[in-house]
Parts: sequence; structure tokens; C-alpha cells
Amino acid sequence: MADYSRIKAALGAREAGHSLPQSLYNDDEVFAFDQEAIFRRTWILIGFEIEFPATGSYQALHIGGAPIIVIRDRQGALRGFHNTCRHRGAELCAEGSGKATRLVCPYHQWTYDLAGKLIFAGRMGDGFSPESHGLRPIHVETLAGTVYVCLADSPPDFQPYRDAVGPMLEPHDFKNAKIAHEATLLERANWKLVMENARECYHCAGRHPELAVTFPIYAKGNFETVSEHEANFERRMVELGLPGLPAEENWWQAARFPLNEGAVSMTMDGKRAVAKLMCPIGDGDIGSLRWAIEPHSFCHSTGDFTFMFTCIPLNTRETLVLGKWLVHKDAVEGVDYDLANLVRLWDATNLEDRDLCELNQRGVNSPGYVPGPYSAVAESLVLRFVNYYVTQAKAFIAAAEAEAEPIHAIAAE
Amino acid sequence: MADYSRIKAALGAREAGHSLPQSLYNDDEVFAFDQEAIFRRTWILIGFEIEFPATGSYQALHIGGAPIIVIRDRQGALRGFHNTCRHRGAELCAEGSGKATRLVCPYHQWTYDLAGKLIFAGRMGDGFSPESHGLRPIHVETLAGTVYVCLADSPPDFQPYRDAVGPMLEPHDFKNAKIAHEATLLERANWKLVMENARECYHCAGRHPELAVTFPIYAKGNFETVSEHEANFERRMVELGLPGLPAEENWWQAARFPLNEGAVSMTMDGKRAVAKLMCPIGDGDIGSLRWAIEPHSFCHSTGDFTFMFTCIPLNTRETLVLGKWLVHKDAVEGVDYDLANLVRLWDATNLEDRDLCELNQRGVNSPGYVPGPYSAVAESLVLRFVNYYVTQAKAFIAAAEAEAEPIHAIAAE
Amino acid sequence: MADYSRIKAALGAREAGHSLPQSLYNDDEVFAFDQEAIFRRTWILIGFEIEFPATGSYQALHIGGAPIIVIRDRQGALRGFHNTCRHRGAELCAEGSGKATRLVCPYHQWTYDLAGKLIFAGRMGDGFSPESHGLRPIHVETLAGTVYVCLADSPPDFQPYRDAVGPMLEPHDFKNAKIAHEATLLERANWKLVMENARECYHCAGRHPELAVTFPIYAKGNFETVSEHEANFERRMVELGLPGLPAEENWWQAARFPLNEGAVSMTMDGKRAVAKLMCPIGDGDIGSLRWAIEPHSFCHSTGDFTFMFTCIPLNTRETLVLGKWLVHKDAVEGVDYDLANLVRLWDATNLEDRDLCELNQRGVNSPGYVPGPYSAVAESLVLRFVNYYVTQAKAFIAAAEAEAEPIHAIAAE
Repeated sequence: MADYSRIKAALGAREAGHSLPQSLYNDDEVFAFDQEAIFRRTWILIGFEIEFPATGSYQALHIGGAPIIVIRDRQGALRGFHNTCRHRGAELCAEGSGKATRLVCPYHQWTYDLAGKLIFAGRMGDGFSPESHGLRPIHVETLAGTVYVCLADSPPDFQPYRDAVGPMLEPHDFKNAKIAHEATLLERANWKLVMENARECYHCAGRHPELAVTFPIYAKGNFETVSEHEANFERRMVELGLPGLPAEENWWQAARFPLNEGAVSMTMDGKRAVAKLMCPIGDGDIGSLRWAIEPHSFCHSTGDFTFMFTCIPLNTRETLVLGKWLVHKDAVEGVDYDLANLVRLWDATNLEDRDLCELNQRGVNSPGYVPGPYSAVAESLVLRFVNYYVTQAKAFIAAAEAEAEPIHAIAAE
Repeated sequence: MADYSRIKAALGAREAGHSLPQSLYNDDEVFAFDQEAIFRRTWILIGFEIEFPATGSYQALHIGGAPIIVIRDRQGALRGFHNTCRHRGAELCAEGSGKATRLVCPYHQWTYDLAGKLIFAGRMGDGFSPESHGLRPIHVETLAGTVYVCLADSPPDFQPYRDAVGPMLEPHDFKNAKIAHEATLLERANWKLVMENARECYHCAGRHPELAVTFPIYAKGNFETVSEHEANFERRMVELGLPGLPAEENWWQAARFPLNEGAVSMTMDGKRAVAKLMCPIGDGDIGSLRWAIEPHSFCHSTGDFTFMFTCIPLNTRETLVLGKWLVHKDAVEGVDYDLANLVRLWDATNLEDRDLCELNQRGVNSPGYVPGPYSAVAESLVLRFVNYYVTQAKAFIAAAEAEAEPIHAIAAE
Repeated sequence: MADYSRIKAALGAREAGHSLPQSLYNDDEVFAFDQEAIFRRTWILIGFEIEFPATGSYQALHIGGAPIIVIRDRQGALRGFHNTCRHRGAELCAEGSGKATRLVCPYHQWTYDLAGKLIFAGRMGDGFSPESHGLRPIHVETLAGTVYVCLADSPPDFQPYRDAVGPMLEPHDFKNAKIAHEATLLERANWKLVMENARECYHCAGRHPELAVTFPIYAKGNFETVSEHEANFERRMVELGLPGLPAEENWWQAARFPLNEGAVSMTMDGKRAVAKLMCPIGDGDIGSLRWAIEPHSFCHSTGDFTFMFTCIPLNTRETLVLGKWLVHKDAVEGVDYDLANLVRLWDATNLEDRDLCELNQRGVNSPGYVPGPYSAVAESLVLRFVNYYVTQAKAFIAAAEAEAEPIHAIAAE
């Protein structure tokens, strides 16, 4: 077992209601731990089924530092594999997307079918067993056109998420969507600071004037109904038959909430950005469905488009933010929507957030940093995220110790 | 307590009169230790009072890796704070200088007055205590227009330095000076190699032809009087009433010494570089006042200008050298002095030294490196610096162990 | 003694016949160990005597991370020294080659003769002993015009290599050769992956179409005779009196083997690249003499030229490949050979191999990587290299432990 004593001490030193001890934000040992204990243990939203349009369509990407391949097999199902050849470990597919009839290692041409089975390996001699050298699989789930992977042997239970969030996602018709735009942004900050930033609007009044036009920046974490505007919205959604009551478990959260009065989409002016709707119910005026996966993502689905935000930790102090904008597949750029107008709000918001995350990291690196109190009112979702992190991290260490214990016990006799 | 066993072993292995064991020059663990045990424990010269001309004038800089703010408060005094918000740790001020009426965190607008008191924090709820969330202060001292900070809880005694060096600095009138030029130089060498280089002129004959014109490159460490020229100089300084006899304690050193015969300033030709003098006594012919702070600086003040050299460790093998040239505030560029002429000598010298420090680092990295003997004659101040370093480092570890001891004692019972 | 427990565990976990456990390819601690335990313990081929044409000709280079100087002394012999001054450790010679009558440290002008003796050190006082401050020597051997260094106190026995390989090298007349071309290539891969790649042609059919024209890509590791073509070749070499039967010890290997039928040189078309031959015996049609040193090199000598491949580990995941092409000193470029034609095959091959090594590294970094089986037929020399590595590494640790043992034994009493 690895030596978790320093991480355990830092987790133990965390004061309730406060930001994390410094080392959890800027220690390389903690970063490696996070990749293993958090990102390689839970469900990670990677995108949408439409990104794998045909048999053999694949994406090669990294989850928790691990290169993986997600590919559509001959039965039409999505499968996931570690992107490393069973011969001498070479990377099978270069990062990116493509289409293949089989997976051929560029090094020595070991060849796998779309189910990961080794179907060719030259000059390996008689004693060699192809059966025991298939690609190592990883878990994949799909839900209403969205795609998730998990690298753990025993993933968290997906069913409650499927039951609760599936009906909310269905009306947005992701299977008939297209990616209108993708953007990546390098942030020189620890992934946890990026996510803390993404989990609160305490900074919105001061730093996101564009977002404040449409987004209820003073809303509570679960968007609970307090105003007449909100009550009206809720009634109307029930009439439209659009599910969206707040639902959550430790690793996910979803709710449909009303935008500011007069706004029907999350754009610079609150007006619809796309003429052809993704979800035609209610003529596009259906607030925003916010669905978020700990530890790495949130999405906003209005009637006309969906914005997906995911973070990809690169190293202790660098994180990649990947954004995807989806519209209905029949929406025509230049006719149904102006791309610059579609992406302007989230592009501006993400750039503003990058600056904030980076100044947060710079300050957190200070020997003078001491954890400070989160606002119970304005930062409840940050607190939720941080508590999630601490809980998962402690559980991972406890499990590792439990496995290790018998050995120690024997050694001690 | 951190594990100092490897550093302690290296310090213990040091042979008297010799350069340091390799790891003390190129081990990342040692670098982090140096920042904490040396740079964040002692007085660091950061510059001059004139750099903070008005109420709210501030500088945001790093000391021992810690971001700090030094700012002039409403009573006219300089104050220092850790540059990290007490909310979630964001950096309050971007590195550099400016002027502020209060310090507003760019993240969530927590606001501090110039005394560091928290005067605004929105939506924090009833239980929140602003009083216990003021900025964390650091020690600041000023002396005859020069400015020092110390990040230790209990700084070294400043009074002996004030008593001895204050009278030497006063005639140079730093309160009526201006910064004529500033330059930074990145040196790919450990900060200790940069300082060893800055503490000897053993290499001057071979490598600094420009400096050798005015500087007594064969002088002893304390510039003790041996020649008639030196005796004459000393007599004349007494007549002029200019204090300058050698004085020192472990962390500082100061003395006025004669330049080479015929030279009145430290320039390429020994001639005065500035017509308007900083110290008009003796019509500018007053040798040079050299004042140096361990672990990071030296300054030369001739009658016409002052050159300040400070080093800022960036990482194990990179150091920033910051130079400042001061002249009288009424000296007019292009009339009283030619800027290129003013800076030429130290610019040339610093560039030559950078090359030497870098080749020293490259050689010290060698597995074939063994510590070698310093010349007792030509490298006495290097020896002084290295002994200072070793003493401070050992004292820091001893103090850490003393604090830790009771715990160990209990555990051992 | 350093703590080798993690490396020892990884070495112990290695499964016979399989690629190495992950950490041996991508752990910084292992990289530092490899430099010390492998590269600084054995004979390293650095080049050729002709690169040191005169008294004082030198090369400053790095072996196992250590900067060294190899220089021709006044008696005409090659000597090696650590490239670090015995004063304060500065690098004596900048990396590269040159010619010197003595070695003068650029820092304080300490001066050494070509035998490494300190002959000048200024201002060091009476107690100083120049005799005990000479340059630290390293072992150098030459063989038929080739040059080797070893940084260990007790190098491996060179005599068996001299006896077996010397007669094979002599006919290629390296003392009358010249360097026609040199090239370096940065590969973002661990040095062991670079060498594994360099030790097999299992990937040649798929990835080296140019090499497959002349090289018997399906040959066994020791090029044992099986075909009529091979038997004819062997008979003819005996007639010509050209030694070349396979010979080897743990750290080296050499054999002359036949190229593909119709090919007389390792070029794009199998034709001779140089009209003036290095080895005139047999009119240039003498196959290729392959001589290889573990852990870092291989060379191919055909009748007309020699290609030398050596790898220089830079860090855990970066390796420099240095190639040298030698021809007869009287061969005239543009007349006897076209340089582009001479270097084309190995340039192309090396670039292709770089891509393979880099994708191998990327895949090996995966948490999903598991060591896979080498082909006993096609990768026997990879297995030989990996076994060499594991054996040397274990022996180094065992020796370190043996030295440390008495101390532990005493401590335990």
C-alpha cells in the first residue's frame, strides 16, 4: 500500500465549513492521489452518444490520467478499454477521435476487434494465449444520449441516477443533437479550485455581469422556490409535464430552475440563441435544467441549447476546462443560429473564471494562507463539493488500509 | 514536524573552510527548506521608502516564496501583510506596485482597510466574525529611507543594525532619492551560488575588467587599512565627519572603503556618473559605502548614486537578481546624468557573474563534485556567508526539534 | 545508503519473459538510480580516436548525468576527468569539443595540465596542497580506434571484449576514418524503451520499409546460419579472412552477418554509398558487422561506412539519440559519396523509431498498463537487454546493501 499518512493528516486537519488545508491544493502527492482515488473511482461524464455515430467510431481520451478508448461495437453498444496494447504497452490510438474496423497497434500490429478481443499477434510462438491478452475493459453507461465511463472495478450504483435524471434529460433529445462548438481552456489552478469556482455564484455579482443578466445569481443551492416568479415557473413546468424537481445523491445533482424574469435562454441578452429548439415543449421557455456530476462537471440545458462544462486535471496546478455546446441536429448555422452569439456568454464567463481560479491558486500557495469560512448561504454547493471530496478521499484510504491490515496483523505477530 | 534528516546529514557533513555538500546546492527539498528556514526567518531589504510615496502606495512581491503586500497606511507608516484573502485564499493584489484606498479581493470583494482590518464581506450570515478575519500582518522596519520586512513571528533584533548602520546611511539621503533604473536578471543557479559569487572578488581579476578599474579587487573582506592611500582616505572621512568604520553582526555588515586611486565613483572610468550628488559631503569623493544583508543583498553607495543588488530564489536552480540604481531626486536624466553610463558597470558585471554562477551550478551538479577549499585571503566573505547559512539552518532544525521533543519523549515512555 | 526498497520491489515483481513493471519506465527515482547503477558503472562507447586528433584535443560530454572531459595528453594517450573544478566545483569546459594546452577554470583560473595535475591556484595561502587537488580521473579504453569510458572505481573487465571484438573491428580501419555526419534526435521516451526498440526487428516489417530492403528483418538474435545464402556468406568471410563469428558477454555482443541477397550496404537501395571503402577486403561486399554495447549502443559496419547509435538518457521520459556516420578519411563528399544518400536510411529509421518509442511511453504511463510477453523468436535481444538491466540493477542494490550491512548489524546489537 502507498503511504497515505501525509494526505490523511491533511484531510483530518480540515475544519468543517472551511476551505481545504493548503497541501490539498498544491501538493504533487495529493494530485496523484486525487487522480486515483477520485477520478478513477467514479462515473465521469465524457460527452454524448452522437459523438460516436457509427460502428467503430471512437474517442481516445484521458480519465484520471489514464488513456482510454471509447468505441461503438458491432452490436451498436459503446465499450471502453484501456488504451494500451497488451504486448509491450504501446498506445493503440492517438488522442482524438476516429473510426476503425479493428484496433491495430502501430508498434507490432497486434490487432483487436471492436470487443477488445486479440485477433492477431505475429510470431508469438506456440505457448502464447491470445485469449488472455484482450484489451482491458472499463465500464461505460449511456443515459438519454449522454455517455459516462468509470475506471473502478466496482463503480458506484448508476441506477438511481438513471431513474432520477433520465426523465429530466429525455425531453432535451440529445440523440438528435449535434456539437455546435467545442472549446478548451487551460487554467493554471488545481482542479479543486476550478470546481469550487464552478459551484458558486457568490462571485457572480462582482465578476460575471454577462451571466447575471439571465442567471439567478442569488439563488440557493437547490433553487428552492421562494418568489412568485419561481412558484409560477414551477406550476408551468408541471402543466407542461416537464420533470425537474431537485434530485441528488452524493455524486450527482439535477434540477430545473427558472431564469431571471424575461429571459428564456442563457445568452448575453436572455433571448433564444437557436431558432430550432432541442426541446420544443413550452416553446423554449422552460428555464434551465442544471445537471452536475461530482467531481468534474456541470451542464445547463435551456430549450434551445445545452452547455457542458467538464474539467480535466493535468497536474497539481493546471487544469483543462472542456466546453461543448449542443444544438438540435437540424439547426443550421447562419440560419437558425449565429455561432458567435451562441457561445459568447459561456466563453466570457469561462475566461473570467479562469482569472479567478488562477489568483485563487496563487494565494493558496502562500505560506500565509489559512483555510477560510465558506458562506453557508452563497457557497453551499462549494461546501457540498468539498465535503464530497473529503468523504471520498477518506473512504479510499480506509479501504486501502482495510485491505492492507491483515498483512500488518500477520507481520506483527 | 517535517523530516529534516537528509538536510541535517548534509549540514553535518560540511567540512570547515570548504564549499557545501552537493545536495545543499541542488536538492529541491533543501530549496524549500531554505525559503522557510532562511528567507522567511530574517530581515530582507526590499527597497526604499520613496517607492511608497503616498497613503495607499503598495508593492506586492514575494519573500521566501510567500506573496506579501507592503503598503503605506493612513498614519504614514509602512505595513506588511500576507497577500492572501482570509476568505478562500485568493491573491489580493497582483504582483507589482500600485495605489489603493482599501484592499478589495478580486474574487468575492472581501474588503480590508489599509491597516488590514476586514471592513466588508457580503452574505456571510450572522455567525461570522469579521474581527477574526483581518489580513495576517508581517513585520516591517524602515531605516534612513531603506525598507526591510521579516516574516518570522519573532524577527532578529533590528536595533543594533539601526544604531550602527543608520548613521552611515543618513548622509546618502535616501528619502530624497529616486529610482533611476531597475533591472532583473534570471540566473540558472542556486541562490547560494549567486550569493557566494557576490561575496568575493577572487574572480574579479580574471572576469571583471570593468569593475577592476575602480574597485580594490585585492582588498580584504573588511577593507582594513594597509596602504597609504587607504590611511589617507580614512583620515579624510573623519575630517568630513562621514561615519563608515567597519561594523557587523551575523546578518549584516557595513563599511565605507576607498576606491582605487583617482576613482570617485563605481563607473567604467571612475568618474562621477551624476552631476547632482546624493551625498554632497566631500564633493562626491567619499569612496563607497558597502552595506550588505545576509542572505540576499549588497549595496554600494558612492557620492553620486547607489546600486542595490538583491537575489530572489525562484527554485532550486534558478534565481532572480534584482538591481536598483538610485540618484538624487533632483538629478535630471540627460542633463545631470546619462542613464546608459550610470548603469553600464553593474550591468556588465552582473551579466559576467551570471555566466560564472551558471557554470558553477553545472559543475556542482556533477556526481564527480567534491567540496573544495575557499581561499582564506580572497574568499573570506564567502566563508562568512556559508557559515551564516549553516548556522541558521542548524538553528532552525534544532528549534523545530526542541518543539517536537516533548511529543517524542511522551511517545517513548 | 539510499532507500532502494521501491526499486527493489519493482525489480522483484518483474515476470520472466515480460516487459518491465511500470515504475521502471516512468518513475523519477528509478531514472536517477539507472544513471548511477547502470550508466555510471559500465563501459560506455563514446566515439572514435579520430575525434581527438592532436595533443590537447578534448570532448566535454555527459555520461550517466555526470559531466566529463576526455582529452589527449602529451604522451598521446586519452585521459578522462570529471569536468568540475576542485576549487568550488565550476564546470571547466563547456559541453562540446575543442583543443587546449591546459585546462583553466573560467571562474578563478585554477589551472590543470593535460594529466589533470593542478599547476596553478592563486592566493590560496601556505597551507594549501595543490597535490591533493588534481582533477578526479575516470577510466578510458581504446580499441582499434574506438573509445570507451567507465565512471566506476572498478570497471568491468575490458580484456575479453578487446580480445574478441578487436580483431573484428581492425579491418574497418577506424583510425583512418572521418566523421561524415552527426545527428541528434530527442525522443520523449524512457531510455529503456528506446533501447528495447533498438534491440528488435519485430516492428520492422510494419514500420521500417526502408530498412527491410537490406536488413534480414526476420533474422534470429545471433544471426545463426539457416539459409544457403547465409552459409555461402559465412564461407566467403572465412576465405577473405574476415573474423565475425558471434561473440558476446553480458555487456557486449558482436557478429558479422549477411545482408539480404543483392545488398552490399545498408542504404535505401542496398548499393554501396561510398566509393572509397573503409574496409577494402572483399571489394565491399562483406555484410555488416554489428557490435553492440549494453546498455546504450549498437553499430553497423559495412564495407563502405559505419553507423553508430548511442542513447543518452536526459530524464525519466526524455532520451537523446546520437548518431555518427563514419567513412574513410580519403573519401571526398560529392565525389566518393553523396551525404544525403549516405544518411537517408538511418535518418528515416531513427525518425520512425522515435514515434514508436514515444507511443510506447505514452501507453506504458497508463494505469491500465500491465507488462506483456516478449516474442521469444522476434524479441530475443530485447529480452537479453531487459535481463541485463534487471541483473545489473539487482547486483548494484545487493552490493550497496552488503556495504551497509555491518552498520545495521552493529546498530541492532
